[in-house]
Amino acid sequence: MKMLSKVGSYEFLVEPFHCDFEGRIFLGHLANHLLNAADFHSNDRGCGMNYLNTVNKTWVLSRLVMQMDSLPKAYDRITVETWVENVMRSFTSRNFAVTGPEGQVYGYGRSIWAMIDTETRQPVDILSVRDGLINKYIETDKPCPIEPMSKVRVSPSAPTATTTKMHYTDVDVNGHVNSAKYIDHLTDLWDMEWHKKFFVSRLEVAYVAESHGDDTLTFLTEETDVNTFCAKIMKTCEASDKPTEVCRCKVVFAPRNS
Amino acid sequence: MKMLSKVGSYEFLVEPFHCDFEGRIFLGHLANHLLNAADFHSNDRGCGMNYLNTVNKTWVLSRLVMQMDSLPKAYDRITVETWVENVMRSFTSRNFAVTGPEGQVYGYGRSIWAMIDTETRQPVDILSVRDGLINKYIETDKPCPIEPMSKVRVSPSAPTATTTKMHYTDVDVNGHVNSAKYIDHLTDLWDMEWHKKFFVSRLEVAYVAESHGDDTLTFLTEETDVNTFCAKIMKTCEASDKPTEVCRCKVVFAPRNS
Repeated sequence: MKMLSKVGSYEFLVEPFHCDFEGRIFLGHLANHLLNAADFHSNDRGCGMNYLNTVNKTWVLSRLVMQMDSLPKAYDRITVETWVENVMRSFTSRNFAVTGPEGQVYGYGRSIWAMIDTETRQPVDILSVRDGLINKYIETDKPCPIEPMSKVRVSPSAPTATTTKMHYTDVDVNGHVNSAKYIDHLTDLWDMEWHKKFFVSRLEVAYVAESHGDDTLTFLTEETDVNTFCAKIMKTCEASDKPTEVCRCKVVFAPRNS
Repeated sequence: MKMLSKVGSYEFLVEPFHCDFEGRIFLGHLANHLLNAADFHSNDRGCGMNYLNTVNKTWVLSRLVMQMDSLPKAYDRITVETWVENVMRSFTSRNFAVTGPEGQVYGYGRSIWAMIDTETRQPVDILSVRDGLINKYIETDKPCPIEPMSKVRVSPSAPTATTTKMHYTDVDVNGHVNSAKYIDHLTDLWDMEWHKKFFVSRLEVAYVAESHGDDTLTFLTEETDVNTFCAKIMKTCEASDKPTEVCRCKVVFAPRNS
């Protein structure tokens, strides 16, 4: 297999109907572009789902951080750069940069992925795959000047913001609620008046467990600092009454016109 | 302005995270591709939003019909062909064909659009725009072998399937709930078990009025024939208690494995 550059670059058109009332891309759609870039980058380098599926292994997204100075607008052509920063046993860290045609930087992303065995659902040593091929693609020189995911705490007394059922369009080809859909539901906790004043300048999501179509999700949120909210998403499924944690999130808002 | 072909062809990649649990594109995302194709086609031919916005006019989607033999799968490259079939005063009919790389036909679409003045919100004579330029693009020879929108009736006693609030991610750059989002919410009325057995083979939506973020929508549905449902979407907004009709829809399901 031919060696490719460590950093992959993928261009996307910001589709008008993927944008909010101000013509700025929804964070869920931007996250989707990052996940697509990760998919293309890993497949092109022989470590993606296309290969892993043939050996009963898969990548599972564990953490996603996005920090944006501003959000691209409708019809913008954006470039998502992505690279592997590190590999540790069954986890890998993958970074992202989102730039415009003139090289202007919109923001950055960080993610952590686990490799698991699709039959046992147990973690796999990533370096056991293809003789550690992924090691050849580790890029340590390219900066990703945003903080990693923080330790998000949500107090037991945090109030319920909403309870909502997951439906057909929330579930992707893996049979689980799609990673970007949690982001949609999370940002939907704030009403239009709030969104007219603020945009999400930083988002952290820890994906703790999977949820499924017809599960009911409860969103608990609390304001932990100025315009900063921590949230816990809990699921209740038909098979069990006991709620279990699905996601732990932190959302930082900044004024739209700053 | 250079004359282009009457039929426009636009290629789209079916993104994996725009697909359902079976890896088939969600109807809302397919509708989005049709709307993008309409946008590109009309802009390229001088009759699109880019020009209309400069003269305080806009297109408003009034009817959308999609009839699919099958739904494209993740990573498929699909082509959406679109052309104007007719113009009548302030309305135009625009058709669509969705095909694959080998020319196989997935299905067809029909739509009706109104042109309105953005200040008065009143209908505009389409042929008054650019000396009737759109007339040069009317294509009557290309077949669109699906029935136009039917007369959809929903009885006053139709039960409420769900009541749900519209949020930030439902609203697009026009400030209204996005046309494709109604389709998502509509198909979400059926649970996962139903969707595992059936796909939507034909969908009709009449867009009657606009709804906005923070509006509450009520979905009334009734089965009018085997696997055929008619639905009415009503809105209640904070300014008024009286529900008003937003959409009138018909959904026909077919078995997934036929």
